Amino acid sequence: MSELLSGMKRTDMCGELDLKDSGREVTLMGWVNRRRDLGSLIFIDLRDRTGIVQIVFNEEWDSNLFSRAGELRNEFVIAVSGTVVERAPEAVNDKIPTGKIEVKVKELKILSRSETPPFLVDDSTKAADNVRLKYRYLDLRRPVMQKNIITRHRIAKVVRDFLYDNGFLEIETPMLTKSTPEGARDYLVPSRVQPGKFYALPQSPQLFKQLLMISGFDRYYQIVRCFRDEDLRADRQPEFTQIDIEMSFVDMDDVLNINEKLIATVFKEIMGIEIKLPLKRMSYYEAMSRYGSDKPDLRFGMELLELSDVLKNSSFNAFKEAVANGGCIKAINAKGCSVFARKEIDSLSEVAKTYGAKGLLWVTYTHDGEIKSSLTKYLTNEELDGILKVTSAKPGDLILIAAGEFEKTCDAMGHVRLELGNKLNMIDKDKYELLWVVDFPLLEWSEEEDRYVAKHHPFTSPRDEDIPLLDSEPGKVRAKAYDMVLNGTELGGGSIRIHTREMQKKMFNILGFSDEDAQSRFGFFLEAFKYGVPPHGGIAYGFDRMVMLLTGSESIKDVIAFPKTQNASCLLSGAPSEVDTKQLEELHIKLDL
Amino acid sequence: MSELLSGMKRTDMCGELDLKDSGREVTLMGWVNRRRDLGSLIFIDLRDRTGIVQIVFNEEWDSNLFSRAGELRNEFVIAVSGTVVERAPEAVNDKIPTGKIEVKVKELKILSRSETPPFLVDDSTKAADNVRLKYRYLDLRRPVMQKNIITRHRIAKVVRDFLYDNGFLEIETPMLTKSTPEGARDYLVPSRVQPGKFYALPQSPQLFKQLLMISGFDRYYQIVRCFRDEDLRADRQPEFTQIDIEMSFVDMDDVLNINEKLIATVFKEIMGIEIKLPLKRMSYYEAMSRYGSDKPDLRFGMELLELSDVLKNSSFNAFKEAVANGGCIKAINAKGCSVFARKEIDSLSEVAKTYGAKGLLWVTYTHDGEIKSSLTKYLTNEELDGILKVTSAKPGDLILIAAGEFEKTCDAMGHVRLELGNKLNMIDKDKYELLWVVDFPLLEWSEEEDRYVAKHHPFTSPRDEDIPLLDSEPGKVRAKAYDMVLNGTELGGGSIRIHTREMQKKMFNILGFSDEDAQSRFGFFLEAFKYGVPPHGGIAYGFDRMVMLLTGSESIKDVIAFPKTQNASCLLSGAPSEVDTKQLEELHIKLDL
Repeated sequence: MSELLSGMKRTDMCGELDLKDSGREVTLMGWVNRRRDLGSLIFIDLRDRTGIVQIVFNEEWDSNLFSRAGELRNEFVIAVSGTVVERAPEAVNDKIPTGKIEVKVKELKILSRSETPPFLVDDSTKAADNVRLKYRYLDLRRPVMQKNIITRHRIAKVVRDFLYDNGFLEIETPMLTKSTPEGARDYLVPSRVQPGKFYALPQSPQLFKQLLMISGFDRYYQIVRCFRDEDLRADRQPEFTQIDIEMSFVDMDDVLNINEKLIATVFKEIMGIEIKLPLKRMSYYEAMSRYGSDKPDLRFGMELLELSDVLKNSSFNAFKEAVANGGCIKAINAKGCSVFARKEIDSLSEVAKTYGAKGLLWVTYTHDGEIKSSLTKYLTNEELDGILKVTSAKPGDLILIAAGEFEKTCDAMGHVRLELGNKLNMIDKDKYELLWVVDFPLLEWSEEEDRYVAKHHPFTSPRDEDIPLLDSEPGKVRAKAYDMVLNGTELGGGSIRIHTREMQKKMFNILGFSDEDAQSRFGFFLEAFKYGVPPHGGIAYGFDRMVMLLTGSESIKDVIAFPKTQNASCLLSGAPSEVDTKQLEELHIKLDL
Repeated sequence: MSELLSGMKRTDMCGELDLKDSGREVTLMGWVNRRRDLGSLIFIDLRDRTGIVQIVFNEEWDSNLFSRAGELRNEFVIAVSGTVVERAPEAVNDKIPTGKIEVKVKELKILSRSETPPFLVDDSTKAADNVRLKYRYLDLRRPVMQKNIITRHRIAKVVRDFLYDNGFLEIETPMLTKSTPEGARDYLVPSRVQPGKFYALPQSPQLFKQLLMISGFDRYYQIVRCFRDEDLRADRQPEFTQIDIEMSFVDMDDVLNINEKLIATVFKEIMGIEIKLPLKRMSYYEAMSRYGSDKPDLRFGMELLELSDVLKNSSFNAFKEAVANGGCIKAINAKGCSVFARKEIDSLSEVAKTYGAKGLLWVTYTHDGEIKSSLTKYLTNEELDGILKVTSAKPGDLILIAAGEFEKTCDAMGHVRLELGNKLNMIDKDKYELLWVVDFPLLEWSEEEDRYVAKHHPFTSPRDEDIPLLDSEPGKVRAKAYDMVLNGTELGGGSIRIHTREMQKKMFNILGFSDEDAQSRFGFFLEAFKYGVPPHGGIAYGFDRMVMLLTGSESIKDVIAFPKTQNASCLLSGAPSEVDTKQLEELHIKLDL
């Protein structure tokens, strides 16, 4: 028997009591969420991770107990025993699941006291972010945070069960490893035993999961921590969690098929939503062309339309040149927006320019049937008719147009589309639109590095029919790469991998690695390619983001128990922190400030 | 359709085919394990993770196919289609599950070739450890390694399912965190954004899991990577995996009860062995006294026996002093060992001395009924009779005796016991003896540091009835700590934690931390204790060791996919390695060699 709990043993969780429990003797333990005094009555909302139940002290039943209840303050931890009773009809609280009952307390033990917390443990807290993070253990007590973390746990379980049932082995890969190449900046860990040498924390287990395929494990998965020492954007964390999957003896369809089943299972189990399979599969080219994004949001239409045919001979230079240089002329029909003020159009124009368009042109089809345009003097009647026809314009519509290099123009118009979608409330927040984007380019030209870089990573296989282009037109080679997209966000991405040594070496060459460089960075990996490599491919999902989307959270910090701030600090523990000189000496390093 | 696999689609796994499949057309993919040529026949053992199946090429069926089969070498990766046929009775191979059938091949595709591997992929490999580690992907192809890693995966699943079903939430804790105090040496990670500051990789998520209890999550678990930068003993790894568990509103019995159910479930599911519950619970004192170990191996008897009563007035000084100083006199009856040569006794004596005994005394009761002893001249007849009686000595037995300080003497005799148990083959390798060791001392005196250190860790609660001793005799205070022991190895250990700020501060005081020190290292943790802490406790299991014991592996390296060597190197990837000066500059450190 524990003196700690005075022999009291919890019989029930607060949030699970209901009318069916009326008359039962129960023992509950939890936090005081709120105390209300009503003369000879004290009401306490008692909270645990399942929810809240009202417990009652009555001076008339036990004045000693009543006076002890008077000591209780918010966030005290208590154990109580008592009887579940039905509330009087007028006292029923429909806002909480336990609102039909309350517990008449017969025994109270204060397990731990609390000072007044720096903010109220309540979903509607107005506490600043940094206060929430410093007192994270209080923030995490809020029901919405409890729900997020519990949902995260449930998603992990659904994923694990599905993968287990489908023959995937959970195998752990090293955290103290060698620098991952072609990626972001590594976090380094100095070695004490080997002076001057360093481990790198993994940016992903990419090489190791491929080595597991080479080891014959056939199907692998891991929900695994990864690290990137990058300047943090709003919703990035220096350490993040990835659902990492790899399988052997498969082609792209096999990977896509099983992965969409996985995601459909998650939606079914967690959201109660049936996702219709197979998912839509859209080429990178089509996604860019129609939605101006390689992660198109399909919750609304307002697609990008192609005006090249109509305007290829336009007297407007930008149009003519765009078409002549193999670019495009993209239009959006903003239905019913002919009434937009000049200022509104200007702000859309700013969006387009931010993403690389030279400008945004407009044609207004007023409710009176009048046509106004920034282009009037350049357009022939025929061209104008063509524009109205391609965009199915009706009186009241606003047509927005941009022209130029294909990717840049599509991207800019894609952002204009999203801006409009939000502005016009076209996006149904309860809708979940999933699709695969496939046929990504294998390479993209980096102006900065003056060389091709891998669009996905250097282990991605080109499409077989494009292999001949590797030498002649590398920029045109499509990859066996795929992204799963949900509501305009990338949930995960992957590829079929190169599985021959020759192709892998060729790829390193195309990426501009010297033989020596390739050898020092990937020598051990290329060596493995000598001894029988199965065709294989896989995918990785950003788990934090997945949980964020499925819980409807605004920030990734709301689905991670102990997240870091934008300068990679843990405000709770104070990491990173200074360390003893002795520790640094042992690691054969010194500060260089 | 994939050109890669020429549209072939795997229908079956090699090791799962059986007589019931006779007549079926199948497509298999895997590695060439062995090729045998018999005139116009070629037999290939084809291997995947499920096992091996024999496939046959016959020159008479298809001479073109036959000649391509002639190209095959060990570790080539191939896809084959063909018909499952029953083997002739004389060709049946009882050594493999698929030995009753073989596959007549109609189609062959070589997916990837292999050079001659540096060692044969076979359980009986004689390859040196460092070669196995360098070519880990070949080593992992060996059936015994496949089995180990698959069993590891299965154990993780059983553990997760059990904990899920019992309301434990899987919650991830940070990897980039603050130095864990009172532990081993930390691995440090320099911060780029905050010059001069460092993260530490976690030695365990101890503080975070307690903070999760303070956050109200009630039940937590994680299978989590931990790190210790210690000089590696034979079977330690710099990174290792822990099953980490914590629960709120519990006393010790609650933790023990659910954890022994967990372990029994693992034994049932993985080994098919029923563990009888509740497990034996033995105090630290009893374990030391009877088995000379805080992790007693109960697979055999030969307990330590106490001779203090018999020898307290002995003329042999060591005996008299031991008893007078509160120590002990411990004996072991090595049944039937009266025939031991002097050399054999000497070597046991060496064991005793290695573990701190001053010497090992002996009494031989020969088969002729004669008594010989290193002590003859010191023992009265009465004392000798007493020894024979307490040890139930019979003709043929050898009695070994040591005396001195309690813990040191028990420990030394415990090792003598283990040595004898092995030497005499008393240990049944198929037996699994589980127990709890409880009531550990809270503190132990460190000669080195000249202060008390925590036996478990500084967050462990003392037993309530021993709290008054904290000031007067801290060394006598027992902790609410417990270890689960399997066959003489610690599987896991844990404790009920301190849950009040006052006691936690007192504990830091007893451990000799200045207020300032406690504040800088644990300030954030003590701060959390201000806001309502539930009574809580937990446990952590060494997952690698658990898998090692359950797979009967000799080394922990055999149950980790990519382990490190004794100097913390990964021979496969070459980690740790040198890094660019630029990387170090960004991290504000330089080498100090």
